[in-house]
Amino acid sequence: MSQVRIKPRLPKGMRDFLPQDMLRREYVFSIVRDVFHLYGFEPLQTPVMELNETLMGKYGEDAEKLIYRAAHAEGKEELALRYDLTVPLARVVAQYQNEITLPFRRYQIAPVWRGERPQRGRYREFYQCDADIVGVSSMSADAEVLSMVVMALTRLGFRQFTVKINNRKLLTAIGQFSGVPDALLGDLYRSIDKFDKIGAEGVREELLKRGIGVDVVERMLPLLQAQMPGLERLDFLDDMLGSLPAAREAIAELRELADHLSDLNVSLQHYEFDLTMVRGLGYYTGPIFETVITEPNLGSVSGGGRYDALIGMFRGESIPTTGVSLGIERIIDLMELLDLYPASLGGTVVEVLVTVFNPELHSESTQLAALLRAHNIRTELYMLDKGVGKQLGYADKKGVPLVALLGPDEQAAGVVKLKRLSDGLEISVPQAEVVERVRQLLAER
Amino acid sequence: MSQVRIKPRLPKGMRDFLPQDMLRREYVFSIVRDVFHLYGFEPLQTPVMELNETLMGKYGEDAEKLIYRAAHAEGKEELALRYDLTVPLARVVAQYQNEITLPFRRYQIAPVWRGERPQRGRYREFYQCDADIVGVSSMSADAEVLSMVVMALTRLGFRQFTVKINNRKLLTAIGQFSGVPDALLGDLYRSIDKFDKIGAEGVREELLKRGIGVDVVERMLPLLQAQMPGLERLDFLDDMLGSLPAAREAIAELRELADHLSDLNVSLQHYEFDLTMVRGLGYYTGPIFETVITEPNLGSVSGGGRYDALIGMFRGESIPTTGVSLGIERIIDLMELLDLYPASLGGTVVEVLVTVFNPELHSESTQLAALLRAHNIRTELYMLDKGVGKQLGYADKKGVPLVALLGPDEQAAGVVKLKRLSDGLEISVPQAEVVERVRQLLAER
Repeated sequence: MSQVRIKPRLPKGMRDFLPQDMLRREYVFSIVRDVFHLYGFEPLQTPVMELNETLMGKYGEDAEKLIYRAAHAEGKEELALRYDLTVPLARVVAQYQNEITLPFRRYQIAPVWRGERPQRGRYREFYQCDADIVGVSSMSADAEVLSMVVMALTRLGFRQFTVKINNRKLLTAIGQFSGVPDALLGDLYRSIDKFDKIGAEGVREELLKRGIGVDVVERMLPLLQAQMPGLERLDFLDDMLGSLPAAREAIAELRELADHLSDLNVSLQHYEFDLTMVRGLGYYTGPIFETVITEPNLGSVSGGGRYDALIGMFRGESIPTTGVSLGIERIIDLMELLDLYPASLGGTVVEVLVTVFNPELHSESTQLAALLRAHNIRTELYMLDKGVGKQLGYADKKGVPLVALLGPDEQAAGVVKLKRLSDGLEISVPQAEVVERVRQLLAER
Repeated sequence: MSQVRIKPRLPKGMRDFLPQDMLRREYVFSIVRDVFHLYGFEPLQTPVMELNETLMGKYGEDAEKLIYRAAHAEGKEELALRYDLTVPLARVVAQYQNEITLPFRRYQIAPVWRGERPQRGRYREFYQCDADIVGVSSMSADAEVLSMVVMALTRLGFRQFTVKINNRKLLTAIGQFSGVPDALLGDLYRSIDKFDKIGAEGVREELLKRGIGVDVVERMLPLLQAQMPGLERLDFLDDMLGSLPAAREAIAELRELADHLSDLNVSLQHYEFDLTMVRGLGYYTGPIFETVITEPNLGSVSGGGRYDALIGMFRGESIPTTGVSLGIERIIDLMELLDLYPASLGGTVVEVLVTVFNPELHSESTQLAALLRAHNIRTELYMLDKGVGKQLGYADKKGVPLVALLGPDEQAAGVVKLKRLSDGLEISVPQAEVVERVRQLLAER
């Protein structure tokens, strides 16, 4: 081993997660995973590296520059680190046609890599969290994934959020309705997308500046400004756009979606139809979704929609698919900001620190630790030759809730002293009752 | 998006885990993680990529050829995929000196990458599962990690296994005792290591062939052949080697270790002192461990030991450390071989498939699915427009234990029909009791 001393550093945009962070991340992952399981979504794992040919040509040139390539000295394959979880899913759906029965509900919570310029909240290694239903064209599937997002956010503790729902086909209809030439449609959607930020006046100015006629703009603005609640907005859009087949189709889909959401107990309080919500990705073919935290206004935590052409690409066919992606890194940050982590989570897995009074009593303390563990109490045995005061300080610094003390007096009396660090409560309990009393003190905190 | 159709393939030596495999892996990970937590080990996560300079010079030239290098088009850093979990731990211990309080108990269950020639049971992406106690020189720490391995294997369902324990210092003493020149010590250890495979006669021949004197070989063989149980073997070694300081130190450590193991309720049935167990890695400085499945004889599932010099390397100091690594990929394979996965694990997360009799009854079935989920029953709602027979076939193929049927007759009678696929049991239950009865049928299986 080389003895050259180098400064310990991380690559740019990458992170270590020390225990306290890991416990928070695992808490979020575990709630989300449980909800995915409740909806019958199955875990899938693909390798970190894919063949380069699997990824190339899927994301556009700008994105491809961000993909990490990899190789070992004698490797002959061209490899790349995955850029998202969708292309690997498409590969899997094609590669295991005989093993996988459709409909296939899968989720994957896993890191992806992008060589973007690091900045606050944006990393080069970050987790994505995707759940998709492959093989179902019915709006029933779209309703399920939306309902799942609502349950996941609710169980995480978010209270004020809204799923915004639009339909790619409605955007197409708006293009037709407005008479904007095809070449300008992208510009049109980009302007509409800014409605939230720049308001009706801002959008109007921008559309005019982009060369869209004033009459077109005047016809379109009422569509975007319509603020009726829930299904009334669909009625309004039907009145305005119903003569266009794309709009009729889109509105019928959204009505169907609303029926399924109602059967799934998702109330109108949690979603709205929003024509100005335009998701950037070009591959959506039907309903699109975006979930935003509204109070306080903290932006998007989930997106998704129906994309019927993408998943079949390696099979050379179209497979109806709908899905959602939770912005899991963002959610983890917001949980902190909104103080949604339970206090009992703490900064350590340890529930009890068993101190060691002196070397003569090491054996007794070890046996106590073994006893607690045998009863599924998470226990650390202190191991350095230090005074009890130092050991209490260690427990306090780590955030261990309970300390067990076993000195000569306790030993002589056949008791263990338990000290709860949050409130300083100290009790001496007979050794035969220690498991029960520890459980009680932990539950009460 | 490119429409070029390419054959969906994986890189060599890498694997996808479809749901059934994932559920088995997660089952193993989750038991191991729970045991680590019981012993107060905290989760740590480091990024998949490290700076190249962090990894280079740590593993030897042959290993370095196997390390994957990575970069994105505009990246200026030299990056590499981690090769193990130990060097990243050493980096972390140096980088966060102010955040991490010693003793630091951490575990990490994570993939590593090595460009080895793929073969049965050996992959280029595979998981490692390490738990280490950093900052404790007492044998108490070594006893804890051993006791943890015993608990983890026991909870996974392994019954017949033995932790073999040796001490690096004993191997040094044997070298001194035998009078083998330093240059031949490596050869000596390699021959001793083969005792299991080639027996006493084989080792004798090999040592003679390597040029070690016949008198030396005769003095040494009794040491290796000693088969006394437990502590008696230490007494014997004391008699034979006790005049050598290294041996005295080693034997004292092992006696201390045995005392702690006894306090931790690890019986002599689960471990033995074995002078012929020589772990390859040169960095061990004290006790070394290897756990083997004995009935049937399936080889090693865990290794580890004390390595006091390695973890401090980025801090330029020595930090006493001991730890174990579970051969988690091997364990996952052996669980299958020995049929240790619980039958209830099945091949799917889904507990109940709610069928849809016809489009008119879709709404009722959806509501039933929502009800089951609200009571934490993992439920899939069937979504294709197919007959009930096909839906039952789908449930059967996936291994879903229970199917709920809600046809016009059930609807009229206010009941739900539940069918358990394992034994064909069918009952009709009032809608108000469905949650309770589903729970019962699932628990009984």
